[in-house]
Amino acid sequence: MRYLLTFSYDGTLFFGYQKQNGKRSVQEEVESVLSKINNEKTVISASGRTDRGVHALNQKAHFDSPKTFDLDRLRHSMNKMLPPDIFIKNIENVSDTFHARFDVVKKEYVYKINVGEYNPLDRNYVYQYNWKLDVDKMRDAIKYFVGTHNFKSVTKTITEEKDYVRTIYDASIEFDNNIITITFSGSGFMRYMVRNMVGLLIAVGESKIEPSDISSILDKENRIFAKKTAPSEGLYLKNVYY
Amino acid sequence: MRYLLTFSYDGTLFFGYQKQNGKRSVQEEVESVLSKINNEKTVISASGRTDRGVHALNQKAHFDSPKTFDLDRLRHSMNKMLPPDIFIKNIENVSDTFHARFDVVKKEYVYKINVGEYNPLDRNYVYQYNWKLDVDKMRDAIKYFVGTHNFKSVTKTITEEKDYVRTIYDASIEFDNNIITITFSGSGFMRYMVRNMVGLLIAVGESKIEPSDISSILDKENRIFAKKTAPSEGLYLKNVYY
Repeated sequence: MRYLLTFSYDGTLFFGYQKQNGKRSVQEEVESVLSKINNEKTVISASGRTDRGVHALNQKAHFDSPKTFDLDRLRHSMNKMLPPDIFIKNIENVSDTFHARFDVVKKEYVYKINVGEYNPLDRNYVYQYNWKLDVDKMRDAIKYFVGTHNFKSVTKTITEEKDYVRTIYDASIEFDNNIITITFSGSGFMRYMVRNMVGLLIAVGESKIEPSDISSILDKENRIFAKKTAPSEGLYLKNVYY
Repeated sequence: MRYLLTFSYDGTLFFGYQKQNGKRSVQEEVESVLSKINNEKTVISASGRTDRGVHALNQKAHFDSPKTFDLDRLRHSMNKMLPPDIFIKNIENVSDTFHARFDVVKKEYVYKINVGEYNPLDRNYVYQYNWKLDVDKMRDAIKYFVGTHNFKSVTKTITEEKDYVRTIYDASIEFDNNIITITFSGSGFMRYMVRNMVGLLIAVGESKIEPSDISSILDKENRIFAKKTAPSEGLYLKNVYY
């Protein structure tokens, strides 16, 4: 049987989603619990990784088991055994051909920036920029990301992607109580892509570049024309759609 | 010169506000920074302590220094030297007779309860009750705390108070997006007093006791009639007034 997990986690105390030797990862914590319940080594396949410090509100991963679980019971057992910074929100049965990564049709990411005073209570959950940004300009700029583009300029400098073309379906900015919330939904996101897009939006908000520069920077298909990568703590994987 | 600090902190990684041998405290971190800047051992006097895990949005403390500081510069220096979970929001000059504890005329505390699904990202900032509560009943109940009462029933079991009479000026409950936010303002709060009042409100919300029982429990002036102490992570010292 193939099962699909929907889970949230606080990325603060993980070295990232993906298993790494000797370092605390979300994948390892979930696999360790499932392996105990399953009585055999159980591997999970997620919709994608998240980097160190990045949070997830609804990450998805599938796993296989010869057992037929009562889904509610399994969820409760897992939550009892998991550390407090991971929470299984839902478990469902899926077909044996379903794949949590390859079947993704849309992903949604959120990025939060505090443009007010430094807030020690939010320091791991909202980027503490703590300076004014021109939100109207950022709203103009974000439109240039929407659509199908080669996003090589906004990926990690060294990546192993074969194809840098992705489609951003929707991108928007909300501004409330000194917190800028940026939402992107798209066909897929490469490593550092959201954080580099946010880095460009911040450069626009600082009036270091103009909104229309986004377009030419994407056209250059070269990371050196982009700006700083926004830090990980402001980033949330919000939803994955199949 | 006497100076008054207004500061916020994330209580998660502290053993409490007050200095304790070998344990990390807010007081010790602030005093250590001030002592370096002042070039002599400097002690701060706060409006009151907060317990382990309790947060502060606007804690107040005064200290004395023979030096005349540029207040903005001092604030920046302190924030550079302090750990990221404490933030100095404001520094002002006060008279030499001012006392951050004895001159308090009003304090405001907030308590947050999540009655929705467990949220790992809020686990240190909102009490994860994760079950329904009857908010209307809690709103009826909270009125019984308002006014001048002997609050011995809702203090720590063993306390050294001489006088258990305090005045609650205002108490209210907001409910939004599965988060119950309870606000109390009063002349002063004894140890565990807010968390024990919240414990009683939760018992009302669970229909274990009736709103009017609050009144008779206070009248008994005995802690054994109160209910569970609500956990520290949901509690915030919001404001101190002079």
